[in-house]
Amino acid sequence: MKVEIITIGDELLIGQVIDTNATWIAHQLTSHGSEIAAISSVGDCSENIFNAIDVAFERADILILTGGVGPTNDDRTKHTLCQYFHTALEFNDEVLLNIESIFLKRNLQLNNLTYKQAYVPASSNVIQNREGTAPILWFEKEDKILVSMPGVPYEMQTAMDKDVIPMLKKRFQVTEYVSRTCIVSGITESDLASKLADFELLLPSGFSLSYLPSLGYIRLRLSVWGNEHKTDLKQQIRNLKKIVKPYYVSKGSKLPEEILSEKLQKKELTLSTAESCTGGHIAHKITLLPNASKHYIGSIVSYANSVKEQLLNVDNNTIETHGVVSKEVVEQMVDNVSKTLNTNCSIAVSGYMGPDVGQNNQSVGTVWIATKYNDEIISHKHNVGINREYNIERTANLAILQLIKMIGKF
Amino acid sequence: MKVEIITIGDELLIGQVIDTNATWIAHQLTSHGSEIAAISSVGDCSENIFNAIDVAFERADILILTGGVGPTNDDRTKHTLCQYFHTALEFNDEVLLNIESIFLKRNLQLNNLTYKQAYVPASSNVIQNREGTAPILWFEKEDKILVSMPGVPYEMQTAMDKDVIPMLKKRFQVTEYVSRTCIVSGITESDLASKLADFELLLPSGFSLSYLPSLGYIRLRLSVWGNEHKTDLKQQIRNLKKIVKPYYVSKGSKLPEEILSEKLQKKELTLSTAESCTGGHIAHKITLLPNASKHYIGSIVSYANSVKEQLLNVDNNTIETHGVVSKEVVEQMVDNVSKTLNTNCSIAVSGYMGPDVGQNNQSVGTVWIATKYNDEIISHKHNVGINREYNIERTANLAILQLIKMIGKF
Repeated sequence: MKVEIITIGDELLIGQVIDTNATWIAHQLTSHGSEIAAISSVGDCSENIFNAIDVAFERADILILTGGVGPTNDDRTKHTLCQYFHTALEFNDEVLLNIESIFLKRNLQLNNLTYKQAYVPASSNVIQNREGTAPILWFEKEDKILVSMPGVPYEMQTAMDKDVIPMLKKRFQVTEYVSRTCIVSGITESDLASKLADFELLLPSGFSLSYLPSLGYIRLRLSVWGNEHKTDLKQQIRNLKKIVKPYYVSKGSKLPEEILSEKLQKKELTLSTAESCTGGHIAHKITLLPNASKHYIGSIVSYANSVKEQLLNVDNNTIETHGVVSKEVVEQMVDNVSKTLNTNCSIAVSGYMGPDVGQNNQSVGTVWIATKYNDEIISHKHNVGINREYNIERTANLAILQLIKMIGKF
Repeated sequence: MKVEIITIGDELLIGQVIDTNATWIAHQLTSHGSEIAAISSVGDCSENIFNAIDVAFERADILILTGGVGPTNDDRTKHTLCQYFHTALEFNDEVLLNIESIFLKRNLQLNNLTYKQAYVPASSNVIQNREGTAPILWFEKEDKILVSMPGVPYEMQTAMDKDVIPMLKKRFQVTEYVSRTCIVSGITESDLASKLADFELLLPSGFSLSYLPSLGYIRLRLSVWGNEHKTDLKQQIRNLKKIVKPYYVSKGSKLPEEILSEKLQKKELTLSTAESCTGGHIAHKITLLPNASKHYIGSIVSYANSVKEQLLNVDNNTIETHGVVSKEVVEQMVDNVSKTLNTNCSIAVSGYMGPDVGQNNQSVGTVWIATKYNDEIISHKHNVGINREYNIERTANLAILQLIKMIGKF
């Protein structure tokens, strides 16, 4: 079945908010066998919402809308849907009950605007919002379906997981999209493509290989429509793995920190970090994951040199002699943080993320990464680029990938 | 002038990559006076790219495309553009020179696939890519313009900043979009809308008020087309500020961490953080900003209780008596981190981010935030929600906002 996603809100068109909803919905529906034909974003304007629905229904069987359903005057979706489906708003007691229970849970007072949320288009089926006050609306029209959801990400996500996806699956028989993904690192996209040119040429009909570059690594995704190709897909991914072996880090479409977390838990290892230039970003990536407390102990974010000396016992002479971005400094950092916080594994980074150039005119993007596993220490120098934000992200990924490879070796 | 943005790539439609390019472009063009009519994303498929261009040209004068211009076989944009503009690829020596210089800078070897990048549609004007190998293509057709750019964010951003936006400004006389934004915190969107209902009703024609909820705060944006309304806009925002005074944090559309960073620099203050549940996210937000090293000293990410006791001198008895998520513990954390790292300001947080419930069955989302400015300590309890990722983001924002308000008071 073909799906289109329409996200609604002026904040998307003026670029104040990143459209993470479309990505999340696309990811969920794809993995449940839908094909996303297109994604579009329009402003809080009835005419544009109306037209977007009209255009999308020409190409797709199912439309998923988010946004524009709040209680404030700039939200136009509900009225536009009434227009589109030739219906009118009517008061819905069950929606009011749901709103009251949500407000009670949060200890908040209902006001007049909140009551407005209980008016819904008469011809829609209402799905109660489990997390918030704006109801989810399900419309049907000549075998096509439109679902309107709130734009608040966790409200929309809960509604999709618990209600909308199960209801859609009940209605449609779907061809499964099967794919295998792996992570490679330490090679450019064009070099990788050259290495894989013959492999791509020889792929069976219907198979496609995609290159998905991230900061510090590239994901390769091999995919095909139809569950019957699963065995063939497995064989092809084995062939691919042989070709990219020196750069291969891991299978799966998980994030580097998820892969690391699983490895640490499986081997019952503990981790600490000592971050200079990444300023806590490695710790943040790791602690975003629910089970972080099982293996992660803590981080010393030694942004100022004084903290490196005071809490990480980095020798002032080493900093003076070799510079703060050096093999010697990160190795002392990685060694001492694992001793101080008593962990089997540790990661340390020091680098110049820009825009200012480093000590002794060292160029922006120079970074040293050290990882420690039991008594072994490995350190590598990288040149990550010139954009501060990307440099921090790339360095964090490279550091995590370095530890994954190091643990994998033993 | 009306603009539409089309982002191209299968990775967008299967939800593997978040479309940050569209947001960035929308933000830049809006602030330069363009109106974004719509944003759409399509896959790497010639037919869909062709149709998206066709539909968008009906509504807009300028189309900005990103993606699908890499050297690999899954990139289809260049061929589709040849089809659309009835032209063919031809070899361009200047593009080759640019590619060679980029590869030289990065110490990489050219391969055959890279040469393919030097073939460009004959009828396009080529803008050299300053950061990468895929050229930027500028097409004109009956007073309408299409610009095709690479999907790699920093390559696209540099091209937009240095070439595309200046070229577009030269071509079009534009009506300026003027807006004022402020941040409020500690009130729900519907309560805020109730308070502002009369204000909205009395707004002069053409003015619009938007509510942009973020995690931990709401941005209010008041806007109007046309520079001549600037004085009126200033007066309206003053009126608005009076109404929301108890919840008002700051003017401007900057992020909380940017506002904090500016305040710290202006007052020549230094900052340290002690993070438990946010796991380094506050430190990361602060160190993403270029000038962080001017005021930020470091963080102790005390994920395990042992680190709280060992590096933050939190009394084990306090943890036993009051629980690790308590006023008493965060106040010891905030006090000791500022003493250990010798800073005038500090932030400390401890909470249960979920999904597991806390010590003594404390509910997910319970969090204590303490801030210290000179010898003063303030601490507040919050209930942030049930989703781990949002809880971490909301807690980090609330902590930063708490310190902004505290510094502002003195």
